[in-house]
Amino acid sequence: MRFLEDMTIGERREVGTFTFTADAIKTFAAQFDPQPFHLDEEAGKNSLFGGLAASGWHVAAVCMKLMVADAQRESAEAAKRGELVATGGPSPGFRELRWLKPVLAGDTITYYKQVESLRPSDSRPQWGIMQARNTGINQRGEVVFSFLATAFVPRRPNAE
Amino acid sequence: MRFLEDMTIGERREVGTFTFTADAIKTFAAQFDPQPFHLDEEAGKNSLFGGLAASGWHVAAVCMKLMVADAQRESAEAAKRGELVATGGPSPGFRELRWLKPVLAGDTITYYKQVESLRPSDSRPQWGIMQARNTGINQRGEVVFSFLATAFVPRRPNAE
Repeated sequence: MRFLEDMTIGERREVGTFTFTADAIKTFAAQFDPQPFHLDEEAGKNSLFGGLAASGWHVAAVCMKLMVADAQRESAEAAKRGELVATGGPSPGFRELRWLKPVLAGDTITYYKQVESLRPSDSRPQWGIMQARNTGINQRGEVVFSFLATAFVPRRPNAE
Repeated sequence: MRFLEDMTIGERREVGTFTFTADAIKTFAAQFDPQPFHLDEEAGKNSLFGGLAASGWHVAAVCMKLMVADAQRESAEAAKRGELVATGGPSPGFRELRWLKPVLAGDTITYYKQVESLRPSDSRPQWGIMQARNTGINQRGEVVFSFLATAFVPRRPNAE
């Protein structure tokens, strides 16, 4: 990933795309969210979702997976250019997670990350704190998933 | 699960317990959050976590898994008593998710659910809306994880 000093408020990045097949939906649900409407087409149809629906935690976990892969791609590109590579820190949490529309079997979600705020950490001088709005948008252009993430990002060594 | 009419504001329930072994932490991380401090003991020690740490999404997914199992247990007990069994609805999202302390390899987390608000849905007369504060507490009594969940819960048929 990049350093705090290399980021700009408002920048928006496509982090990746994932198609939620019925198989992927059921496999995740069996492991972490075994409710009937995530496991069975008929139960999904008869639920408020109107079809076999991905667990919201699945939609969120795929977002995380794609964001990590994107950051690793970004780091590999920086290393190739001979630049110093930053290693990200943990996240203290997030706000306002919303599952706005169901993600049904066959839907393809594209995830985006938009930087909303950047500031140095008060208590840890090598770290900054970034807030980013992460969204997932389906193949019809509808926002299905959104949350405001907070994460520690490293500061560039010797940055003022 | 139970019907809206059977729940009371303030009620608190232990939903289950999970020990985050190094193996479980690495298996989840490899699939959904492959950052070094979730995959490798040394990288964890050298991070802000101070040890091999579970992905926050793992801590959350385990909470979901235990809540579903608890609701299914509750339903089985109601069925055994010959009572009408309720089927839960989806969640539109949640607020204020916080990872307050790291969950490190070997930690045992006990999850609780406390009902914070209950109201009938304005748009869907068969459904109510429940807000619950879900927390995870480690073996030292420290709250490590907390979020305010919102979910549709069914109303008892013919309830006023």
